[in-house]
Amino acid sequence: MVFNEKKPIQPRSEIEQQKVLNRLKRIEGQVRGVQKMVEEDRYCIDILVQISAINSALKNTGFELLEKHMNHCVSHAIKTGNGEESIDELMKVMKQFSK
Amino acid sequence: MVFNEKKPIQPRSEIEQQKVLNRLKRIEGQVRGVQKMVEEDRYCIDILVQISAINSALKNTGFELLEKHMNHCVSHAIKTGNGEESIDELMKVMKQFSK
Amino acid sequence: MVFNEKKPIQPRSEIEQQKVLNRLKRIEGQVRGVQKMVEEDRYCIDILVQISAINSALKNTGFELLEKHMNHCVSHAIKTGNGEESIDELMKVMKQFSK
Amino acid sequence: MVFNEKKPIQPRSEIEQQKVLNRLKRIEGQVRGVQKMVEEDRYCIDILVQISAINSALKNTGFELLEKHMNHCVSHAIKTGNGEESIDELMKVMKQFSK
Repeated sequence: MVFNEKKPIQPRSEIEQQKVLNRLKRIEGQVRGVQKMVEEDRYCIDILVQISAINSALKNTGFELLEKHMNHCVSHAIKTGNGEESIDELMKVMKQFSK
Repeated sequence: MVFNEKKPIQPRSEIEQQKVLNRLKRIEGQVRGVQKMVEEDRYCIDILVQISAINSALKNTGFELLEKHMNHCVSHAIKTGNGEESIDELMKVMKQFSK
Repeated sequence: MVFNEKKPIQPRSEIEQQKVLNRLKRIEGQVRGVQKMVEEDRYCIDILVQISAINSALKNTGFELLEKHMNHCVSHAIKTGNGEESIDELMKVMKQFSK
Repeated sequence: MVFNEKKPIQPRSEIEQQKVLNRLKRIEGQVRGVQKMVEEDRYCIDILVQISAINSALKNTGFELLEKHMNHCVSHAIKTGNGEESIDELMKVMKQFSK
């Protein structure tokens, strides 16, 4: 996984960071829960219901990050004359995200 | 999490089970990877790209389970005169799944 | 648009057909409504809300057709030993449909 | 349909407007095409493929409007100190749009 070394314009506060981490820890636990269901040969529909729930939890986590990104990084880019580039970058990830 | 104790009509083969478990283990690792990115205060767009990738991996895992479910449980229900009920159940989870 | 000349195993009843056509007529009207909003240079968010509404209406129409297809064509294929092929075909369209 | 009378901060250029209208006219034609397929009792899978195609066309139209909205209305709101409100509004429609 190759990432550019860009950083958020404003570091996440400890509270923000912990909030996102808690969500992700719960999602990690849900994924392990589904593994257990597969090992116990649980009914497929019940497993699919859990996978849908994890998908929603991930999307909500993503939207939270997206909102913060717009309020900080994109807003800063717009105020400093780099709005178009930042919006272009945002649109690409939003299209991927809405699949 | 309340589940009815229904079981798949035909237990997953060891190979099938291992294949799904491997996918879920990878997804679990990806979720931990995103936690690390948040801890390292990585750029929001890079984190969102990873969340989208996890969403796709989860969807593909779901579709694999769905196909197996149709080929086994739903087919058996149809052959034994319980098709409508099984299809009704399937439609509910598919609507959730396509959100 | 190239279509194979396959037909539903059981023709839609007049009531079923009319129900789907009514939905599609409403959707057609909604699309024209959005055209009018664009011509009147309406606020982008209001237009996007309408486009989302059309998307949902289309998805619901699709799910209705999908359910009928499973109860008739797929069930018939399963009963006559062609289940796998019919389910394979169904999975392809479901993956497209859930994007 | 109740709309607030907000207008885009900058009216769409004739070219922009025509581009969006052309897309919507094509979509209108596709919806009528699906009506014809239903009237001709065409195979369900073929109809579903067309409905998916319309969904994609609508989403792409929506993303184009979204990008323009961000580059004009949201950017103006940010520059004039109303960014949070505008981003909040945007997030609501994006969540709807990604279902």
